[in-house]
Amino acid sequence: MTEAKDCLRLGIPKGSLQETTKKLFALAGYNLRISGRSYYPNIDDGDIQCILIRPQEMARYVEQGILDCAITGLDWILETGADVMELANLHAPWPNYGVVRWVMAAKEDSDFNDVKDLKGKRIATEAVGMTTRFLKEHGVQAEVEFSWGATEVKPPILADAIVDVSETGSSLRANNLKVLHVVLESTPRFVANQEALEDDWKQSKIERMLMLLNGAIAAATRVTLSMNVPRKNLDDVVKLLPALSTPTVSTLADENWVDVTTVVEEKQVRELIPALYLAGARGIIELPINKIIE
Amino acid sequence: MTEAKDCLRLGIPKGSLQETTKKLFALAGYNLRISGRSYYPNIDDGDIQCILIRPQEMARYVEQGILDCAITGLDWILETGADVMELANLHAPWPNYGVVRWVMAAKEDSDFNDVKDLKGKRIATEAVGMTTRFLKEHGVQAEVEFSWGATEVKPPILADAIVDVSETGSSLRANNLKVLHVVLESTPRFVANQEALEDDWKQSKIERMLMLLNGAIAAATRVTLSMNVPRKNLDDVVKLLPALSTPTVSTLADENWVDVTTVVEEKQVRELIPALYLAGARGIIELPINKIIE
Amino acid sequence: MTEAKDCLRLGIPKGSLQETTKKLFALAGYNLRISGRSYYPNIDDGDIQCILIRPQEMARYVEQGILDCAITGLDWILETGADVMELANLHAPWPNYGVVRWVMAAKEDSDFNDVKDLKGKRIATEAVGMTTRFLKEHGVQAEVEFSWGATEVKPPILADAIVDVSETGSSLRANNLKVLHVVLESTPRFVANQEALEDDWKQSKIERMLMLLNGAIAAATRVTLSMNVPRKNLDDVVKLLPALSTPTVSTLADENWVDVTTVVEEKQVRELIPALYLAGARGIIELPINKIIE
Amino acid sequence: MTEAKDCLRLGIPKGSLQETTKKLFALAGYNLRISGRSYYPNIDDGDIQCILIRPQEMARYVEQGILDCAITGLDWILETGADVMELANLHAPWPNYGVVRWVMAAKEDSDFNDVKDLKGKRIATEAVGMTTRFLKEHGVQAEVEFSWGATEVKPPILADAIVDVSETGSSLRANNLKVLHVVLESTPRFVANQEALEDDWKQSKIERMLMLLNGAIAAATRVTLSMNVPRKNLDDVVKLLPALSTPTVSTLADENWVDVTTVVEEKQVRELIPALYLAGARGIIELPINKIIE
Amino acid sequence: MTEAKDCLRLGIPKGSLQETTKKLFALAGYNLRISGRSYYPNIDDGDIQCILIRPQEMARYVEQGILDCAITGLDWILETGADVMELANLHAPWPNYGVVRWVMAAKEDSDFNDVKDLKGKRIATEAVGMTTRFLKEHGVQAEVEFSWGATEVKPPILADAIVDVSETGSSLRANNLKVLHVVLESTPRFVANQEALEDDWKQSKIERMLMLLNGAIAAATRVTLSMNVPRKNLDDVVKLLPALSTPTVSTLADENWVDVTTVVEEKQVRELIPALYLAGARGIIELPINKIIE
Amino acid sequence: MTEAKDCLRLGIPKGSLQETTKKLFALAGYNLRISGRSYYPNIDDGDIQCILIRPQEMARYVEQGILDCAITGLDWILETGADVMELANLHAPWPNYGVVRWVMAAKEDSDFNDVKDLKGKRIATEAVGMTTRFLKEHGVQAEVEFSWGATEVKPPILADAIVDVSETGSSLRANNLKVLHVVLESTPRFVANQEALEDDWKQSKIERMLMLLNGAIAAATRVTLSMNVPRKNLDDVVKLLPALSTPTVSTLADENWVDVTTVVEEKQVRELIPALYLAGARGIIELPINKIIE
Repeated sequence: MTEAKDCLRLGIPKGSLQETTKKLFALAGYNLRISGRSYYPNIDDGDIQCILIRPQEMARYVEQGILDCAITGLDWILETGADVMELANLHAPWPNYGVVRWVMAAKEDSDFNDVKDLKGKRIATEAVGMTTRFLKEHGVQAEVEFSWGATEVKPPILADAIVDVSETGSSLRANNLKVLHVVLESTPRFVANQEALEDDWKQSKIERMLMLLNGAIAAATRVTLSMNVPRKNLDDVVKLLPALSTPTVSTLADENWVDVTTVVEEKQVRELIPALYLAGARGIIELPINKIIE
Repeated sequence: MTEAKDCLRLGIPKGSLQETTKKLFALAGYNLRISGRSYYPNIDDGDIQCILIRPQEMARYVEQGILDCAITGLDWILETGADVMELANLHAPWPNYGVVRWVMAAKEDSDFNDVKDLKGKRIATEAVGMTTRFLKEHGVQAEVEFSWGATEVKPPILADAIVDVSETGSSLRANNLKVLHVVLESTPRFVANQEALEDDWKQSKIERMLMLLNGAIAAATRVTLSMNVPRKNLDDVVKLLPALSTPTVSTLADENWVDVTTVVEEKQVRELIPALYLAGARGIIELPINKIIE
Repeated sequence: MTEAKDCLRLGIPKGSLQETTKKLFALAGYNLRISGRSYYPNIDDGDIQCILIRPQEMARYVEQGILDCAITGLDWILETGADVMELANLHAPWPNYGVVRWVMAAKEDSDFNDVKDLKGKRIATEAVGMTTRFLKEHGVQAEVEFSWGATEVKPPILADAIVDVSETGSSLRANNLKVLHVVLESTPRFVANQEALEDDWKQSKIERMLMLLNGAIAAATRVTLSMNVPRKNLDDVVKLLPALSTPTVSTLADENWVDVTTVVEEKQVRELIPALYLAGARGIIELPINKIIE
Repeated sequence: MTEAKDCLRLGIPKGSLQETTKKLFALAGYNLRISGRSYYPNIDDGDIQCILIRPQEMARYVEQGILDCAITGLDWILETGADVMELANLHAPWPNYGVVRWVMAAKEDSDFNDVKDLKGKRIATEAVGMTTRFLKEHGVQAEVEFSWGATEVKPPILADAIVDVSETGSSLRANNLKVLHVVLESTPRFVANQEALEDDWKQSKIERMLMLLNGAIAAATRVTLSMNVPRKNLDDVVKLLPALSTPTVSTLADENWVDVTTVVEEKQVRELIPALYLAGARGIIELPINKIIE
Repeated sequence: MTEAKDCLRLGIPKGSLQETTKKLFALAGYNLRISGRSYYPNIDDGDIQCILIRPQEMARYVEQGILDCAITGLDWILETGADVMELANLHAPWPNYGVVRWVMAAKEDSDFNDVKDLKGKRIATEAVGMTTRFLKEHGVQAEVEFSWGATEVKPPILADAIVDVSETGSSLRANNLKVLHVVLESTPRFVANQEALEDDWKQSKIERMLMLLNGAIAAATRVTLSMNVPRKNLDDVVKLLPALSTPTVSTLADENWVDVTTVVEEKQVRELIPALYLAGARGIIELPINKIIE
Repeated sequence: MTEAKDCLRLGIPKGSLQETTKKLFALAGYNLRISGRSYYPNIDDGDIQCILIRPQEMARYVEQGILDCAITGLDWILETGADVMELANLHAPWPNYGVVRWVMAAKEDSDFNDVKDLKGKRIATEAVGMTTRFLKEHGVQAEVEFSWGATEVKPPILADAIVDVSETGSSLRANNLKVLHVVLESTPRFVANQEALEDDWKQSKIERMLMLLNGAIAAATRVTLSMNVPRKNLDDVVKLLPALSTPTVSTLADENWVDVTTVVEEKQVRELIPALYLAGARGIIELPINKIIE
């Protein structure tokens, strides 16, 4: 009992998500060291024990209670059909933490234009479960073959169609494939075991960790804008700022000017800066931020 | 019909066997070019069309007749249970063409010492079919879970035992695993589709290709030894030579000496040369060979 | 007409300027993705179309109107003699965005000490136009040969002198060359096509982009200094600060102290911090900035 | 005399400390360029001349006065026994700037459990002086052999025990070694020649450089936390903040809220942020800092 | 005069031909060492001095007499129009020593299908001379622009058509280009300066070097086949052998068998071995050869 | 006693000699596998146990009897002054198996031109013993300081002169150093422990291994030349052949021709082939050889 509280077992995804996961924890304030050969990464929190596991197997081990919580992709959560609690969508503007699209595709010059056209055909995929479910939903019977890789080169000789990940679409284009359907849009998720959440100590531990992980992800797309504004132009300037959060207006020694500081989406800066300048703001400074908890 | 003769579809194994397969074909006299991105390697024989396929999927495609013949490992032939004709064992002293051992292993400090001890336990493996068959043969019921990789780090937390490839045993040692059983010893095989062999043109094409592949493999472990021998010592020298093939004894201008040339296993040379020298042979020269057809 | 406004064609320099150009756009708020093989980088602004082009050819394509604007070096603008509008000097403290010196050089132990000494000699260079012009300006007639590379190793066998880029001078030293003249000091420039600037939409689009690019470059050499200052020392502290921009003095809860925040050149910090400390400032913090628009 | 003031000779450690040393100077405001082949790094301060030297030899050259000051490890200062002034411990959370432990170790299954057990045995080490001193302190006579590397693989055949660096302990584990004693815990130090410190110009130059180096190291483990706090909760929030430095409380336009900004250890953020949020703080922002001089 | 005989100046092509040229000289019996930074490769023949030069500039320097002889591509010999003596075509089955095709190409979906269609259009190429000559031969007037690289991506925006090297055609395909004409098929050539050949010492030196270079190239595509043949089948076997060179038939100790040894094209081996075996040959051995001078 | 015969302990040099040593054993017929992390290479001879050791420490361990035999450089044998039996000079035309020159060097523009000039000066070197001995032989007293590396950059600031390895002289030139003396010319040696040689089994084991190692080294610089010669020209041809070994002259089916086969130094081939051709030889073939025991 007491012992159960002593340690939180956390699954770290091996492979494409690994580097960014490490960076995410670093931004959240945790030092995760993954040494070349070990599958037990070191974390600078004595209450947490990490295990490096492939995303494909992660949800299964969380469901079985071998792990208390983990990060893995929505795709593999669904593929395994494991019964886990999803606590956060960790979608972020970092490598491999963006949206992953699973698409059904066939040769451009084939007659296959819709899943209905694949009746009785062979479909190669790494995600047999997801594909079978998709076919059933559309009432189509077809042969689904597990593919060990290089799925996109299989049509038309080794398969009639495929269900595969399409990062940028360039692999599809290179193999002259057309997309018939988007089967799933997946992002990394933070999942937990149901029983683990019923343990107060683990639940609180997970909650605080998530506040920091979410704070780091929120900061990733934002910056601080700080500027001097003539007191008379203050309203004009403030009106330009996104409604997201009220700006901090602080008084200056020179009473004709105030300092306006606010957090904005980095994407908006391109449009915002020229507009703020026109509205009278000067000395506009953009600063990076590490974390933000609103 | 006629068209079927026009082309022999040959599966080249992608991955660990790829480089050596390319080298084997080069030694046999074929130039196989595998360009970075394409899955259709180029071969300098207009009658052959190559496809690069994972060993795991190869036998399935040969069985279905999509390929006429292919190289893949015995392990994956058995794992898929595909019905194909095995025409040659391509075991050779080259990287990844040696013997691959699949072993059942568990933690050194565990109580598991025999497959019988695994009743009701979880066994992780990439070869679910092979493992299931092995358990059935030994009358043991256990849970076999497909492993997406890094199988050897799973005991004891993620699995009780594993069935995995053990190249040099160093990975087992590094993870403190002990071998319970050798489940299979596998080597690369040349397999063909049954129907393809009934086509005269394809059968003859395959047969000649195999003569060259076998000739290259046979040469890989042998060298030519050539030496000058005093005519009076000829019998002593010849007696030392392995019975494998009769040496070529050719006359020289100097009638007191003869030239003895023979092909021997490279391994024997270490013992043979000192012995030949003692028996009177001089000017002993070892030459490399490309191919040998006995 | 309408269509002309739909898209701004922007030339991105391929090669040594490429990586820093990508970083400059990132700092300015644009995500420029250059995939390995494509010459059409992706930018997250639907109104802009990028093309990757060698700096040597850039000005020519801007002059011809194939591009609306571009980044390239002053050297190649002059070499091609193209008629383009230079809108900004993008000199920045980043790799390859510093000053590039084109020098005329000859062997250290040669008799050539001045361009006048090269009358009738052979000069190898990648910049035939620039060299020819320089010779003409100095009234010297010599043979200028186009060099395909490795120009610095040509004297004395393959050429008498060279005109070449000298980044750090180490290549000159390694080849025992002495500099006769600095022919040109070049930095990256933002150039535009004259007609494009007459289009209102394009002109405004370019102007806003330049505000952000310039803001990022200005920030690259500056930092924010923030410190607590006893109210009585405020004048002493403020006097130490560079005149560049008035510091933001904000009141604190503790009325005996004020917070002074200002932006300074990073280079000055080394001298400034010890001086500020002596003048009574405490809790001096230096923060990085992303952009600054004064 | 006058000339002596013109230049400060600074030793930069070659090898494992090199990269981080370069980064440390960058953070302190100096641009140190180490070109591939040269041993005289360039620094953007005309008064300083840098030389790249192995840490093992550094203290010797500082003692001899060939260098005025340098960075090297405490281990090699002690090993050489050089008489130098230690001015700062540069321990920092960067690669190779952490604590380096020199341990005495022997095979796990050996009978050696204490330095006393090594009487008359052979000990291999790169640090013969340090080891000899340690043995003498413990009154043990043993044979100390200089090891040219790979010391940890020597027991039991090539040595009975070793004294070697143990970064993470993983090399010890991999070679089945157990630690008998920690002989020394070392970190990088800033050392100076005694006579150099008696020269006013050099002493002042070194002092100002150290203020910046220390400021950069102090900033490495800290961040700025900025938040909006309801005026009524101010005391609760301030109580949570570490005593390290008084927070800057600035007034806002909205009189019900104040802005609280403070510098905290990055490590504390994990516990602090959830607590601050509970105490009423909102819009909590964490910003990186470059330097801090308290 | 005498001095002129002391040294033969040999140009070694820098770049894509470099590695194979080094290998060719090694096979011919010369040790050519090209150290990273030097442009004066070392050769183990005191009478020869090597210089590393780009193929584009090679012929010019041979024509000027700065080099006595050199290896470069036919394409650049023609492009420069230099007046040099071509002594050997070094076409060989090694990387970059095969045939290089220069093609005129345009976008697949363009209306350009013949050089005639390019009247008044812009053609980008690295080989301005070759292209201009080709246009003149076909009576077409067009604008030829020098391209600094990445020529194949220029159509249709930066050029209407191109003249460029097409190694395997894959770059053309990747850019959706179609070939209008093959402008030139080029291979590496050994060229010499006319005056150098009139010097007896140089001429003889070059001649002997060429015998060895040609011997190495001839051996590259051939192997030795050696086999035992029943005396009664000798005629049948000999008839199968290519007419190229008479086989060496040597007597054996066993009078019923003879040894037949011959040199054949490696390409023929694939067909020859099965046929020889059918004709009674046994113990067929294929050996590699270094050089052959017929 | 009996046990002593069971195993021969062989030291394999780690570092620059390692790769070529592995290749040498391969050519001699032994498969030596050095896995990344282990210091106990695997050899396919159950009677031999290998240990990977730095050349600097090798002789010491052979002298102490920890190793029975080993390969290391003459330089480190002398430096350690270890009492070992040298059985073979393994000088060979392979990387790092050539001659290594240790030279005494000083700055080109220094006044040091002879060891006599270094009286009272500081000399930096990795070979303190060798340098001290050399100074004593020349009756010069100077301070010898152990250098941990980068010795060649130490003059004139960190040392007055050095004793260091000079592979090609390029490092000396790059640092503007002149050679005062060649202190030692070193090559790899095969050494053995005196007592090991008194054990019959070990002595015989070593002897046979050396026959094969020497056979591989002898073959490295030689090739087989085989040619057809008109019987009437036989004497002329034979006269041209080096006296090294009598050629094998074998009769051919065609009585007017004989086959002449001989082994020659590869270096001589360049001169020999043109001469043999002139003397009437035809179908001259050069073949590589693996081993030769004369």
